[in-house]
Amino acid sequence: MREAVILLSGGMDSGVLLAWAVSRFDRVHGLYFDYGSKHARREYPRACELASYYGAGLTRIELSFINELFSSSLLSSGAEIPEGPYAQGNISSTVVPFRNGIMLSIAVGYAENLKIPTVLIASHSGDHPVYPDCRESFTAAMSQAAREGTFARVEIQAPFASLDKKGIADLGRELGLDFRMTFSCYKGSERHCGRCATCLERKEALGYDQGLDPTEYLA
Amino acid sequence: MREAVILLSGGMDSGVLLAWAVSRFDRVHGLYFDYGSKHARREYPRACELASYYGAGLTRIELSFINELFSSSLLSSGAEIPEGPYAQGNISSTVVPFRNGIMLSIAVGYAENLKIPTVLIASHSGDHPVYPDCRESFTAAMSQAAREGTFARVEIQAPFASLDKKGIADLGRELGLDFRMTFSCYKGSERHCGRCATCLERKEALGYDQGLDPTEYLA
Repeated sequence: MREAVILLSGGMDSGVLLAWAVSRFDRVHGLYFDYGSKHARREYPRACELASYYGAGLTRIELSFINELFSSSLLSSGAEIPEGPYAQGNISSTVVPFRNGIMLSIAVGYAENLKIPTVLIASHSGDHPVYPDCRESFTAAMSQAAREGTFARVEIQAPFASLDKKGIADLGRELGLDFRMTFSCYKGSERHCGRCATCLERKEALGYDQGLDPTEYLA
Repeated sequence: MREAVILLSGGMDSGVLLAWAVSRFDRVHGLYFDYGSKHARREYPRACELASYYGAGLTRIELSFINELFSSSLLSSGAEIPEGPYAQGNISSTVVPFRNGIMLSIAVGYAENLKIPTVLIASHSGDHPVYPDCRESFTAAMSQAAREGTFARVEIQAPFASLDKKGIADLGRELGLDFRMTFSCYKGSERHCGRCATCLERKEALGYDQGLDPTEYLA
């Protein structure tokens, strides 16, 4: 039986990754990490809905130390989420230090414990230079560390590494994903704000201006 | 000011590492990880005592998910700790999947958050093949992942990589470390049991048979 562990935040990228993974693996184990982000209470129900819809397992892992010790506007302990596109310098305030490194290492331990040889992450080429732990050079080194540090020689795969956000949106449509099951907004209000960097990016990828985006936005 | 983050369990290896580090860095930040081991309640007070004695900071980070989700006889949720030396096959039951990967990635995030460029771990050549995430090939790949995944290009250093346990004991003596401030026993009773693999290894390294080991053992 082919099995994989997948980082499932309930966002658009990991939603598409789940839809992709269930056609390639017999069993998929989703991990949702609650690290105290402002949008966790919106994300987690989407991760549950996605896992349920696609027949995947889902385990919630709480990392309360991140909110207590780390500084980021993404966190409930942090400053306000800036508005405007990623291109603006202020978006660097949303970086959570080494977040992907931390989540991946826990996923590798989880996979090793169950003797599952594959961990999947939805990193993509559109992930902005502002997030160093989204780059391919990082994922490659982390995968090497996972192989060396486990008996199962766990491998980290980022199958969307060569896609951009638009490419992920297109793939999701091909796979029949209902994007309303996913949540992107960093602000964490009930509906997508439509103004923060990740909402603007979502609109563009899903073709909001062309009337193709099924998301309900506040603005 | 030269600063470093150090993984400080309160064991013999990290105790020596702390004594070593305070002579090389102006400020040392210790991280103690409570992942639900049987010996956590004995280790943590030693980590506190060591940090206090050497003037280092100490932050305790709770990783309750490890005890809940992972299987290992080292954990309070696991089976009994086997007796006898490392050479015996049963010691593999004490492996906690990718433990060093998880602790290091959190330490890297902590260091990145404070713009500290160095994380120290006490891995050494005597770490047995049964722990894959203690090997140099793992530490090197993990350090590469840390550099790639952070703005501060955080580096992981294992300065004891070429020493064995005896070499660490000798270095600790040179540095004047009182080994009674450290705790090794996996069983977690009030005093060292003297029979588990890590107690036997400690006795040998500290010269118990030669009357050089200041530790009080139950047997």
